[in-house]
Amino acid sequence: MHNIKSLQQVIEKELQQIHFPAQPKDLYEPIRYMLAVGGKRMRPALVLMGCEMFDGSIKHALPAALGIEVFHNFTLLHDDIMDNAPLRRSKQTVHHKWNNSIAILSGDAMFVKACELMMEVEDKNIRQVMNIFMRTAAEVCEGQQMDMSFENDKNVSIKNYLQMIELKTAVLLGCCLQIGAVTAGAGDIQAKHLYDFGKNIGVAFQLRDDLLDVYGDEEKFGKQTGGDIISNKKTFLLLKAQEVANSQQRSILNQWINTTGTGQEQQKIKAIKNLFDALDIRKFAEQEMESHYNKAVSHLNAVEVPAEKKSLLEKFAGQLMVREA
Amino acid sequence: MHNIKSLQQVIEKELQQIHFPAQPKDLYEPIRYMLAVGGKRMRPALVLMGCEMFDGSIKHALPAALGIEVFHNFTLLHDDIMDNAPLRRSKQTVHHKWNNSIAILSGDAMFVKACELMMEVEDKNIRQVMNIFMRTAAEVCEGQQMDMSFENDKNVSIKNYLQMIELKTAVLLGCCLQIGAVTAGAGDIQAKHLYDFGKNIGVAFQLRDDLLDVYGDEEKFGKQTGGDIISNKKTFLLLKAQEVANSQQRSILNQWINTTGTGQEQQKIKAIKNLFDALDIRKFAEQEMESHYNKAVSHLNAVEVPAEKKSLLEKFAGQLMVREA
Repeated sequence: MHNIKSLQQVIEKELQQIHFPAQPKDLYEPIRYMLAVGGKRMRPALVLMGCEMFDGSIKHALPAALGIEVFHNFTLLHDDIMDNAPLRRSKQTVHHKWNNSIAILSGDAMFVKACELMMEVEDKNIRQVMNIFMRTAAEVCEGQQMDMSFENDKNVSIKNYLQMIELKTAVLLGCCLQIGAVTAGAGDIQAKHLYDFGKNIGVAFQLRDDLLDVYGDEEKFGKQTGGDIISNKKTFLLLKAQEVANSQQRSILNQWINTTGTGQEQQKIKAIKNLFDALDIRKFAEQEMESHYNKAVSHLNAVEVPAEKKSLLEKFAGQLMVREA
Repeated sequence: MHNIKSLQQVIEKELQQIHFPAQPKDLYEPIRYMLAVGGKRMRPALVLMGCEMFDGSIKHALPAALGIEVFHNFTLLHDDIMDNAPLRRSKQTVHHKWNNSIAILSGDAMFVKACELMMEVEDKNIRQVMNIFMRTAAEVCEGQQMDMSFENDKNVSIKNYLQMIELKTAVLLGCCLQIGAVTAGAGDIQAKHLYDFGKNIGVAFQLRDDLLDVYGDEEKFGKQTGGDIISNKKTFLLLKAQEVANSQQRSILNQWINTTGTGQEQQKIKAIKNLFDALDIRKFAEQEMESHYNKAVSHLNAVEVPAEKKSLLEKFAGQLMVREA
């Protein structure tokens, strides 16, 4: 069994060796650029971990792992157009460096490449792997659409929010592990436990991000806190505050939500944080996060392999939970 | 064996029955809208024809036929964003009726659905069918990128142009027939002949469209001629004229190309048509078209099935060739 770092190195090396034609340059150059922008390559590492947990050889899981990473970068590329984002990981986004049309089409071609890589799994697994992948791909689109619709929706519930983050980001983590397990010949029930582990950890991740934006250690976290508050992002924290506030608190909250771009950012952060404190919002969010973390762990516990095979994923899950505050 | 019309009816009925979830509405409503906008459903009909030619039952080819139609509509949806087109078949395009973000994402979800439908082929054919489909999908992206790049490229050759139309539109017709043949258990060589028939007919189609824009009967053709000339579209005719013109003719041509939006459209059409006549451009285009038509027919002739099995495709190819002028 490899450790996480060595899996990431394998992936990085293989990613650089994926062949794309030289022409048309404006189709394939943006794809090479996007894949070189980097990232932690956690998703493909999860595919390989899912495979090794069931004593599979990573050579059988590697094409699927690369397919997942190319797919993930395709979704980022198209999301960046939709969000009109100028930068990703401190580099120009594809639609800014080239243009929207090139970004749309390069994204489409990346999705094709992702499918081709995914299809390199062994014959006996192709249908099952592709079914998991396609179901997940549809769900990721659904999650992204929900996220966009929420921007102009005044009635987003906590339930809606949890469903959105599950679809937009969490199911892909489950998909990675499940596909990895399938390539190693794991049974359906075993692979499904890994899926549920990944999905619940994914929701916990996102809730942790929501918490970190408000309560994170700015030095450790590497960016200023309060960004979500300034932009009125509908995080778990804001939605929960809207749910449990009394009418007076709600009117204060709405007043600050309507205060945008007026040089009062620090006051806004402070006022909303005070409100969160008064309403015990941090505790609600931590409880929700822990509930998903615990669900994840119980699914990992249910996987019928020797305990030492689970240590990598335990470590992976545990690391998440210590980074907060 | 069914006739073309009855195949189209089968497809229309099945297309309407494809299930899409109710939510998120802004993801799936545009897909239902796009698929209802219509079209001749020729591509899925070709899948079924390819299948029946080898005595296959269309029930085995139907999911792939629907997958092709959904894929084709996905490419139209994204192309309309890139071309900033307000209308398709006299109806609002998706990005105009909704917005660009919704159109990008609905397109992505359509591609996912196309893959899911395609994957419903029998186990024994899934890898071969998906390989053909994915290779073609990549080529269609390449063709669209070439088409976009040509707009700002002063050195497009006839060879470049033929390659572009082959990738952008012709290979998909070949893919339809080849996949249909595979679902019926046709051998590789037989299926490849059908592919080459479809691809060459596809190139002939596009050249005919270029000819019709200049020499078409406006009543029969249903739209005014000269549109390509007014918009300086780099058709086979214009590129050939640029290739064979002497320096004086080239300077007249360039003068008219630089004349845009000045109320001189009819004069421009007349002048360029005169130049085409002087250079025998119509003959060059017809020869190129016939050469592809003849290649197509020779591949159809090479298919080892009784002559009566080929009559539908012969009719299909023949209809193309009579519509001009």
